[in-house]
Amino acid sequence: MPTPTPADKFTFGLWTIGYNGTDPFGGPTRPPLDVVHAVEKLAELGAAGLTFHDDDLFAFGSSDAERQTQIDRLKGALADTGLTVPMVTTNLFSAPVFKDGGFTSNDRSVRRFAIRKVLRQIDLGAELGAQTFVMWGGREGAEYDSAKDVRQALERYREAVNFLGDYVVEKGYDLRFAIEPKPNEPRGDILLPTVGHALAFIDSLARPELVGLNPEVGHEQMAGLNFAAGIAQALYHGKLFHIDLNGQRGIKYDQDLVFGHGDLHNAFALVDLLENGGPNGGPAYDGPRHFDYKPSRTEDETGVWDSAAANMRTYLLLKERAAAFRADPEVQEALEAARVAELAQPTFGEGETYDDFVADRSAYEDFDTDAYLGGKGFGFVRLQQLATEHLLGARGIR
Amino acid sequence: MPTPTPADKFTFGLWTIGYNGTDPFGGPTRPPLDVVHAVEKLAELGAAGLTFHDDDLFAFGSSDAERQTQIDRLKGALADTGLTVPMVTTNLFSAPVFKDGGFTSNDRSVRRFAIRKVLRQIDLGAELGAQTFVMWGGREGAEYDSAKDVRQALERYREAVNFLGDYVVEKGYDLRFAIEPKPNEPRGDILLPTVGHALAFIDSLARPELVGLNPEVGHEQMAGLNFAAGIAQALYHGKLFHIDLNGQRGIKYDQDLVFGHGDLHNAFALVDLLENGGPNGGPAYDGPRHFDYKPSRTEDETGVWDSAAANMRTYLLLKERAAAFRADPEVQEALEAARVAELAQPTFGEGETYDDFVADRSAYEDFDTDAYLGGKGFGFVRLQQLATEHLLGARGIR
Amino acid sequence: MPTPTPADKFTFGLWTIGYNGTDPFGGPTRPPLDVVHAVEKLAELGAAGLTFHDDDLFAFGSSDAERQTQIDRLKGALADTGLTVPMVTTNLFSAPVFKDGGFTSNDRSVRRFAIRKVLRQIDLGAELGAQTFVMWGGREGAEYDSAKDVRQALERYREAVNFLGDYVVEKGYDLRFAIEPKPNEPRGDILLPTVGHALAFIDSLARPELVGLNPEVGHEQMAGLNFAAGIAQALYHGKLFHIDLNGQRGIKYDQDLVFGHGDLHNAFALVDLLENGGPNGGPAYDGPRHFDYKPSRTEDETGVWDSAAANMRTYLLLKERAAAFRADPEVQEALEAARVAELAQPTFGEGETYDDFVADRSAYEDFDTDAYLGGKGFGFVRLQQLATEHLLGARGIR
Amino acid sequence: MPTPTPADKFTFGLWTIGYNGTDPFGGPTRPPLDVVHAVEKLAELGAAGLTFHDDDLFAFGSSDAERQTQIDRLKGALADTGLTVPMVTTNLFSAPVFKDGGFTSNDRSVRRFAIRKVLRQIDLGAELGAQTFVMWGGREGAEYDSAKDVRQALERYREAVNFLGDYVVEKGYDLRFAIEPKPNEPRGDILLPTVGHALAFIDSLARPELVGLNPEVGHEQMAGLNFAAGIAQALYHGKLFHIDLNGQRGIKYDQDLVFGHGDLHNAFALVDLLENGGPNGGPAYDGPRHFDYKPSRTEDETGVWDSAAANMRTYLLLKERAAAFRADPEVQEALEAARVAELAQPTFGEGETYDDFVADRSAYEDFDTDAYLGGKGFGFVRLQQLATEHLLGARGIR
Repeated sequence: MPTPTPADKFTFGLWTIGYNGTDPFGGPTRPPLDVVHAVEKLAELGAAGLTFHDDDLFAFGSSDAERQTQIDRLKGALADTGLTVPMVTTNLFSAPVFKDGGFTSNDRSVRRFAIRKVLRQIDLGAELGAQTFVMWGGREGAEYDSAKDVRQALERYREAVNFLGDYVVEKGYDLRFAIEPKPNEPRGDILLPTVGHALAFIDSLARPELVGLNPEVGHEQMAGLNFAAGIAQALYHGKLFHIDLNGQRGIKYDQDLVFGHGDLHNAFALVDLLENGGPNGGPAYDGPRHFDYKPSRTEDETGVWDSAAANMRTYLLLKERAAAFRADPEVQEALEAARVAELAQPTFGEGETYDDFVADRSAYEDFDTDAYLGGKGFGFVRLQQLATEHLLGARGIR
Repeated sequence: MPTPTPADKFTFGLWTIGYNGTDPFGGPTRPPLDVVHAVEKLAELGAAGLTFHDDDLFAFGSSDAERQTQIDRLKGALADTGLTVPMVTTNLFSAPVFKDGGFTSNDRSVRRFAIRKVLRQIDLGAELGAQTFVMWGGREGAEYDSAKDVRQALERYREAVNFLGDYVVEKGYDLRFAIEPKPNEPRGDILLPTVGHALAFIDSLARPELVGLNPEVGHEQMAGLNFAAGIAQALYHGKLFHIDLNGQRGIKYDQDLVFGHGDLHNAFALVDLLENGGPNGGPAYDGPRHFDYKPSRTEDETGVWDSAAANMRTYLLLKERAAAFRADPEVQEALEAARVAELAQPTFGEGETYDDFVADRSAYEDFDTDAYLGGKGFGFVRLQQLATEHLLGARGIR
Repeated sequence: MPTPTPADKFTFGLWTIGYNGTDPFGGPTRPPLDVVHAVEKLAELGAAGLTFHDDDLFAFGSSDAERQTQIDRLKGALADTGLTVPMVTTNLFSAPVFKDGGFTSNDRSVRRFAIRKVLRQIDLGAELGAQTFVMWGGREGAEYDSAKDVRQALERYREAVNFLGDYVVEKGYDLRFAIEPKPNEPRGDILLPTVGHALAFIDSLARPELVGLNPEVGHEQMAGLNFAAGIAQALYHGKLFHIDLNGQRGIKYDQDLVFGHGDLHNAFALVDLLENGGPNGGPAYDGPRHFDYKPSRTEDETGVWDSAAANMRTYLLLKERAAAFRADPEVQEALEAARVAELAQPTFGEGETYDDFVADRSAYEDFDTDAYLGGKGFGFVRLQQLATEHLLGARGIR
Repeated sequence: MPTPTPADKFTFGLWTIGYNGTDPFGGPTRPPLDVVHAVEKLAELGAAGLTFHDDDLFAFGSSDAERQTQIDRLKGALADTGLTVPMVTTNLFSAPVFKDGGFTSNDRSVRRFAIRKVLRQIDLGAELGAQTFVMWGGREGAEYDSAKDVRQALERYREAVNFLGDYVVEKGYDLRFAIEPKPNEPRGDILLPTVGHALAFIDSLARPELVGLNPEVGHEQMAGLNFAAGIAQALYHGKLFHIDLNGQRGIKYDQDLVFGHGDLHNAFALVDLLENGGPNGGPAYDGPRHFDYKPSRTEDETGVWDSAAANMRTYLLLKERAAAFRADPEVQEALEAARVAELAQPTFGEGETYDDFVADRSAYEDFDTDAYLGGKGFGFVRLQQLATEHLLGARGIR
C-alpha cells in the first residue's frame, strides 16, 4: 500500500480536519481541534502543508493579541514539523455581516469591510510564505433574481479583485489569486458558478495573469459537470493555480467526502490528467494536491485522521493505476484505434490556404460519408473498459 | 481475468446489442442486427439468455407470417446454442399510436389495443418458457400537469395489470410480472417514477403476489437515488423479480452505459448485495443478471460485442472484489466497530413490554447522550476506505 | 388581494419562523424567537395553527421544570389567540447522539433512547389535541453503502413504528402518524427517500391504517420528481395525512423557500389538485396547509413575518387562479379535446369477458394505428398554455 | 391578450415547428413539414423570421439541384411574406459521419468535411442576409474520459473557429458567430458545457470580437444553473449575440418545451432583464427572440401552430408583467430597501487610495458587525413576493 510523503505535496485545510460536524440539521459532534495538534498529526500522516481561513485560526472578532497568539502557535508547529502553508484564504461567509456576501453585498459598507478583512489575511499569508490566495465567494449570490443585479455584482467583484491585484504587486508579494467556483449552497445561485464562468471573469480583469482558479471536485459535480474535463479546460487556458480534491455523489448538497469516495471514474481520469497529462507524459500540474473535504459527522477524532489518511492513500492508488494504464500496450493500441492522438494533428495542413482547402475534393465532394454507417467505429467502449479494469486493479499494477 | 459462463445467468435484451445508434439528434450509425446472429454471438461470449420486445423481433405491423418466420428463426438459434428466453416484454412506446401511453393513454381505444398487444406477447413468452414479463411504461406519463389525471391513470394501470394477472392464472402460465420504474424520458414525468412508487402500486393490485419489480440502475440514478439501497428495499418487500444492469453518470438523460461504466461504488455495493447479501452470506437474488444497456453510437459491430463482453467482465470483477471484501479480517473488524450487525438486533428485548421499556432508566433518564459529542464515532469513513481499496483491487484479491 | 383566515387552515412549524439563519457555512443571523411572540404574530397574520418539535419548544436536555414552563407558556398563548396545534413531531436529528439516526442507528441504545423521546412528545401532542404525529427520519440513512444494512434498517424502522402504533391505540389517542420522505441531506442517502418508498413501507406495517404521509414539496423536487403527481399517488392510496408546503428551485440542497417561490407551475397544479381534485370538484384534501419553509438568512424579523404572510398569500392567489381555470369554458373544451376525462372510463366494458375482449376485432385487428401519425393529436400544449395564462392572471380572474 | 407582430422580432427554427416527434424511444408522429407552408404559417402568426440548419431545408447528401430547389422555394416564401432569415446554422450532429463530432472528431478527415459543410452554409446564410451564424457543437464531446483529449479538442475547435473568422472577414460578410453551449446530450459530456466555458473559450480566439454566444434556456437549466444570471454575465462581457428561448423542467433530458412552460420565475427574470435591463431601463438586448423548442410528440399539426403561438404570447405576457413590476412604486420602495441599486455604487471612493482606505477606521476597526445579527435585513423575500404577485398578474397590470 503506497505511503504519502511531503514530496507528494498533499495539503489540508485546517477547516477540513477541524470540521466539527455541524450541518443544517444539527450542531457539533466533535469538539474544536487545536491547530498545533492538527499540524503534528498531519505531519505524522505524511502531509506537506496546511491551509486556513483567518477565522479557522482565530475566531471572527478576535483581539489583535488573541490573533497573534494563534499565529505564533501555528508558526511554532510549522517549524517543529516542517509543514508549510502554501495557501491561505479569507472567511467572507460565516459572520452575519456577510449574509448577502462580501465583495458583492448590496451593502457598500460590508464590501469595504470585506476587502479590509482580506488585506489582513493576504499580509499574513505572505508572511507565512503562501503562494496562493484562494477566493471562494460562497455568499456572493442570491436566492431571488430581482434581489441582485448580476452585472453590477460582477463589476464590484472585478473592482475588488483589481484592487487586491494592485495591492500584492505594490507590496511585492509573491502571491497569486485563485477563484473557487461553486454553483449554489449556501446561496440559491452563486456568482461565477462554474470553472467556465470564473475563467471568463478572469479575462476581464486588469491583471489577469495574477488570477487563476482553484476548482473543487464536488463543486463542478454539483452542476453535473465533468470535473476532469473542466480541469482540462482550465489547464488549456493556463489557469489551474490550485486544486481542491474531495468526493461528491451526484447533484445534491455539497458533500465534501474523501477524495475517491465519490465518482471514482472521474477521480481516475483527474489523477491521470494531473500526473500524466503534461508534456511527454509528465505531470500537467505541479502545485499542491489540496484536500477540501469533511470527515463525516458520524466520526470521532479517530475517524478524522483515518479520513485524512484515506484521501492521500486513494490519490496514490489512483496514481499507480493511471501509470499502469498509460504503460499497458493494449491500452496504447486501443488509444491508437480510437484515434485519440489524431486529435492533436491540426485539421489544416501546414501552409494550407483557403483556396487549397476548398479545392481538396477528398475533403468534401469525394469524401465517403457512407462509410461511417456500420463502419469506422471508434472503439471508445473498449477503451473505457480497459480504463475500468485498470481502475479495478485487474490489469498488471504489480 | 474472469470469463462468463451460462451459470452466471447473464442475459441481454435484443434491443441492447441491436441498438442502431439513433438518438434525439441523429439517426442510425449501425445497420439492423439479425436475431440469429445475435444469439450466436451472445452464446459465444458466455451469455445465458436473450430477452426481447415483440417489435424487436418482428416490426410493428408485421403480418402473422412475417412474425412467425422471425419466431421460428429465433427458436432455431436458441436450440442451436442453448440460450434461453427467461423474460419478454412488449413495446408500448415506439409507435405513434402510443404517443400518450398504452395502458394509461387518455384515448380508451389505444388502451384496449395496448392490452391486446401485450396478450399476444405474453402468449409468445409463455411458449418460449419465459418466467418474467417486464412492463416498462415509458410513455405512461405526461409533460403537463393538467393533461393527465394521475389518479385515473393509476386506476387504469391497475385495471390493466389486474386483467393480465387473471389472464396468466387462467391460462396456467408460469409467468410473473415485473414493473420497471423510470422517473422521466421520454415523458416529462412518468407514472411510477421510482422503485418505491411501483412497490406501493403493486400493493394495491388484486394479485400482488404475481407482480414485482425490474429495477434498472440508471433509472433510479436519474432521480439521484441510491440504486443499491433501492434494491435492498425491493428485496425487503420480496419484490426483486428481475433486474436491469447498466451504467449512468448522474442526473441527466438515460445513458444506458455498460454496467460499471457509471457509478462504480454503487455497482460494487449492488453486486455485493446480490451475491453476498442473502442468508448466510449467499446470494440475495438468483434470477438473471440482465443487461439493459446501449453500445455507444460511436461504435461499429466490433464495439457492440466488446461492450457486451465488458458488461459481463465488470460484473465478475466486482463479484471477486466483493467476495474478497467480505473475507478480509480487517473489514470484518471495521464492520464490527461500525456496529453494522448490531442493527439486526431488535430494539426491544424479547418479551419486553411497554411498561418494562418505560421503566428502563438506562434507556432514557440515565442514558449518557453527552458521550456522543467527541466520542462513540462509528468509523464509517474507514469502512468506506476499505471498500474503496477492495474495489481498486488494492487488497488481496489474488 | 386575498387575506388569510383560520378557515384556510394555514399552519406553521415553530422551527420555520424561528429559524435563526444557520446553514452549513454560517451561524445565526437572527436571535431566538420566543414561542409566545410567535403564536401572537401568526394569529395576527391569519394562521390557524402552530406545530413543533420537542426541541423547538424546550432545548434538548431541558429539565422537567424548564420543559413544563415552556409548555405552559405555549398553552397560554394558544388560549389567548385561538391557535391550535394540529401536529407535533420529535427531533431525532440535531443532537450528537443521533448522528447515525434515531430509529435506525446502528447503536441499539440510541434506538431505545429515540423511541423514549418520541413517546414523550406523543403524550404532549395528544395533550395539546394534535391529530397528526409527523416522522421525518432525516438522519435515518448513510453516506456509505457498507455502513448500513438497509434491510435491517427498514426492519428496525418497522419495529419502531409498530410499537408506536400499539402505543397510541393502547392510550386511546386520536393520533395518526405521517412519514415525511426525503432523498438526502443531511445524510448522503436517506431511507424512504420518496413518497413512493414510504408508501411501500407503510403497507408492510402492522397497523397501516394508522400511518400515512407528510410529503414536502421541496423534498420530492430534490429528486427531480413531480410533486403534484406524487401527491396524486398518495391520495390514490388514501395516504395524504398531512402536507408540507414550501418552494425549491430544482435539484440542489434543501432550500425551504416560501411556497410559490420555487416551481410555480407545479405549485399551481398542486393547489388545483388539493382544492378542486375531490369528488364533484371539491377539495381532495381537508387537512392543514402546513408551511415548512425557512425565512432566508438575509432577513431580519420583519422579513420573517413578511415571508410567513407571503406563503399564505401565494396559496390563496393560486387557489383563485385554479378556480378560474376550472371554470373557464375554453379550458373545459380543451380538457375535452385532450380526452382527460376519458381516462376515467374503464378500459374494459362492464361485464366484458376475456373472450369478448379478444373477439373484438375493432380493438386490435381492425384498429387503425396509422391514424395516429399526423393525426389524433391530444392538444396538451394548448391546455398547458391555458393553464399558464390562468397562472399569469391573464384570463378572467376578476 | 397581447398579439405578436414582426416588431417583436420573434423567430423560429425550421427544425422546431418541423420537429416530427422522434425521440429516443419512438419514431415520427408527424409527417414532414414543408418549408413554404412553415413560412406562411409563421407569418400569419406574427413571427418575424425563420432560421434553419442546412439539413433542415435540404436533406444531408442532397444533390446541388435538390438543394437549389429548396433554397429557391424558401426565397419565394420569404419574398411573399416579408419574413427574414436573421440566423443560420449547420448540422454537424445527425449524420453517422459526425458520430464523434465535427470540428473535434478524433478523425481528421471528418473535421475537414465538417468545416467544408459549414462554409457552404455560411455562404448561403450571407446570401439570405443572416447576421448570425450559430454553432451548437452537440456532438463535440465524449462519454468516456480517456476517449477525448479535451485540450486538443479545444485546440481543434479554436483552429476551426479561427479559420471561419478569417473566412467571413475575407469574404466581407456581415456575419458574426454565436456559440451555443450545452452540458450533455447527445454526448455524455459536451465541450463548452455552459455559458461560462464558452465565454472563456471565445477569449482565446484570434478574433474574439466576431464570436459571441447563443445561450439556450434549457441548456443552462440542465446543469441546474440560473439562466437569467448566465445571460447577465454574457451581457456583462458583451457577448449576447443571439438567444434561444424555450422551457425546461429541471435537470433531466433536453425538453425543449414552449417558453414559459418550464421555470416561470426565471422566465420572468429573463424577460425583465432583456426588456428592461438596458441603460435607462430600456432593452438590454435588441436581437431576435428566437424560439428553439419542440412541439410535444403528442400533438398533430394543430398543436404545432398552437405551440408556436404560445411561445410568443407567453413572452408578451411576461413583458407586460415585467413592465408593471418596474413601474410599481411598492416595488421601487422594496428595491431601495433591499439596496439593489447600492451595488452600482463603487466600493472605493473616487480617487480613494490604498492609504486612504486602510486609514478609514469606519471601514474596519469601528465597523459595527454586530448590527447584522438580528438587524439590517435585506427584505429580499418581500421583493420576491412582489415579483411573484406581478408574475401572477395580481398587481396592477391593467
